[in-house]
Amino acid sequence: MTILPIQGGGCAATGFTASGVHCGIRKNRTKKDLSMIYSEVPASAAAVYTTNLVKGATLLVTQKHLADGHAQAVICNSGNANTCNANGAEVAEQMSKLAADALGISPESVVVASTGVIGLPLDIEPIAKGIPSLVKSLSADGGSDAAEGIMTTDTIKKEVAVEFEIDGKICRIGGIAKGSGMIHPNMATMLVFITTDTAISPAMLQKALSTDVADTFNMISIDGDTSTNDMVTVLANGMAGNREIVSAGEDFSLFMTALNTVTVALCRLIAGDGEGATKLLECKVSGAPDMKTARTVAKSVICSSLLKAAMFGADANWGRVLCAIGYSGAAVDIDKIDVSFRSAAGEISVCEGGAGVDFSEELAKKILLESEIEILVKLHMGTASSSAWGCDLTYDYVKINGDYRT
Amino acid sequence: MTILPIQGGGCAATGFTASGVHCGIRKNRTKKDLSMIYSEVPASAAAVYTTNLVKGATLLVTQKHLADGHAQAVICNSGNANTCNANGAEVAEQMSKLAADALGISPESVVVASTGVIGLPLDIEPIAKGIPSLVKSLSADGGSDAAEGIMTTDTIKKEVAVEFEIDGKICRIGGIAKGSGMIHPNMATMLVFITTDTAISPAMLQKALSTDVADTFNMISIDGDTSTNDMVTVLANGMAGNREIVSAGEDFSLFMTALNTVTVALCRLIAGDGEGATKLLECKVSGAPDMKTARTVAKSVICSSLLKAAMFGADANWGRVLCAIGYSGAAVDIDKIDVSFRSAAGEISVCEGGAGVDFSEELAKKILLESEIEILVKLHMGTASSSAWGCDLTYDYVKINGDYRT
Repeated sequence: MTILPIQGGGCAATGFTASGVHCGIRKNRTKKDLSMIYSEVPASAAAVYTTNLVKGATLLVTQKHLADGHAQAVICNSGNANTCNANGAEVAEQMSKLAADALGISPESVVVASTGVIGLPLDIEPIAKGIPSLVKSLSADGGSDAAEGIMTTDTIKKEVAVEFEIDGKICRIGGIAKGSGMIHPNMATMLVFITTDTAISPAMLQKALSTDVADTFNMISIDGDTSTNDMVTVLANGMAGNREIVSAGEDFSLFMTALNTVTVALCRLIAGDGEGATKLLECKVSGAPDMKTARTVAKSVICSSLLKAAMFGADANWGRVLCAIGYSGAAVDIDKIDVSFRSAAGEISVCEGGAGVDFSEELAKKILLESEIEILVKLHMGTASSSAWGCDLTYDYVKINGDYRT
Repeated sequence: MTILPIQGGGCAATGFTASGVHCGIRKNRTKKDLSMIYSEVPASAAAVYTTNLVKGATLLVTQKHLADGHAQAVICNSGNANTCNANGAEVAEQMSKLAADALGISPESVVVASTGVIGLPLDIEPIAKGIPSLVKSLSADGGSDAAEGIMTTDTIKKEVAVEFEIDGKICRIGGIAKGSGMIHPNMATMLVFITTDTAISPAMLQKALSTDVADTFNMISIDGDTSTNDMVTVLANGMAGNREIVSAGEDFSLFMTALNTVTVALCRLIAGDGEGATKLLECKVSGAPDMKTARTVAKSVICSSLLKAAMFGADANWGRVLCAIGYSGAAVDIDKIDVSFRSAAGEISVCEGGAGVDFSEELAKKILLESEIEILVKLHMGTASSSAWGCDLTYDYVKINGDYRT
């Protein structure tokens, strides 16, 4: 099984086009704030959403539209989350309708999403004015513009795509994501739009996505705050021409692996671009008695503000790793735990059997000054393993969030 | 019932003396690092401890010593937590024995505690050398020195005392605390040493303390990190001469109220002195269907990194309050929630019925520029209420924790 990285992001798959424009929701005219992805033909659709009780109006509308397991287009604005507004649902329906009319499809075929400030009414005016040029500029090269249009405090565009073969046919999966703050997904996450030309039924597509997020987007945390607008959607238009995947089996496994390649890459892009972050952190837990324990421990470590600040300072303060494992709620045997730090500069063991070992502070510093750090935790209790992704806590996180609205 | 604030902190109660010295655990010679509190006569003793699976060695030793419900002295060092060390329990027992010998009491009468870096072996040498002068300098005026000796990143000494009357006798409760980072108590918290001359049985003392912490120390969060060394202890030596409290009733209620006055004041001191904090935040939740919901909502709001950063920037970003309520796990009706901000500069309503209302950004800024901010959340579902305390997230939190060990 070969899964190759390719260019094209959100419209790498056959039959998809995309675009992004500045419509005027944001004052900064150089920043695109409205994006679209479109499939030539109706596509199987699946999604997972935030578990936050406060839900963005667009999420509720999208849930309704995807009830039949199909969709053909995505529209998403940045700069305003359209959440906690009295007229939120109405505006989200208007957005869908305007997009649908311009594309000549039904409003129920539209995935609608918004991201930005919570609690400010979203003006439909600029969106209505922007949609004609958005539709006109749809192109197979538009993935990058679409990726830009959904960014908020993100500093880099997040797009990934891969190519693989099912049933003798070339299939592709691509995706774009936004997410930098308010990232602590729970059953779903930030905004991620994935497209594929693989033929797969809505039920199997949903199964693939729901299974995958437990080990990917649900294992990221930037700041412990679960957003109100998190959503991951995947559209599969079947244009690769493979025999449709309608049940578990070899084809489905291959699709799952390819999907996971895309989602893990997007997770790393999101975590590494956390608000103010200078470093991507990955906590790899192994030797856990079960998956739940592995995930709980990995996520608790990656969420610790104290550890995140220590990583910013390149300080090998492993006591904070043990502390975070201790309060995670997981039933582990502290006296068995080994901890080491690893990066491009090498690996160093700092704790064995729950107690500190002598180590070279100089080497530890060198390892922790790299931009991608692995925190390796061995529990020595079983064979389950899990990874979680996050970033360091920096002055800039505080700066960015000290005055986000103005 | 009158409860009056008095001076004297940890040894305001009759029969208690205290001291603090620099013994050499810390390199900085101007910073005291070893403290003692002593009662002339054996006292009833009660304690609550961290729920972190990783527990400081001194906690385990103290738990053993307090098994009989009595103690007569406290010894505590700062600069090293004596946690995750192979010889931790041994060193903690040595500390108790040295203190007990110098005081002429049994080691089982000693509460022993340590706070500071995790995972560095604690050298008994400087402690052994410091104990003679620590015992020699015990005095009724020593509460302030003892409060200083337990500080780590704290910027202010935390001491509180009150006076009240039970059964015609003047009773006093006083306490000292340390805690500034790694503060997110769960069933117990940081280091707090409370003393009282009230006569009360060990069982009723434990009941009073365990009941109280649920609404006080367990409702603080600085950074979401539950420490490995949290502990609150109370010693009651009975020297006020009141009829001993051995059951629930009027005297016990009065004692509980006085204890709560001390603990809430210590909570506010701890939260307001959070690492890097410029502001004390208090989230007051009312109209909850039950206490659990009230506490869950209050604590979720106070823990949000995004809200904490917004408060640092005096930004009335109330969407983050609703977001934190939404992911708290509490079953609330979002469409009923009102939110307002209050401080010495006034009060401003920012959200009613789950949606934003027009408000003066100018007045909001003025209110949020104060050093003590109340976040008022009305759920309109019942009559239960609760408060949680925390602080803003600032550049200095990152600075302090980016390189704590060196």
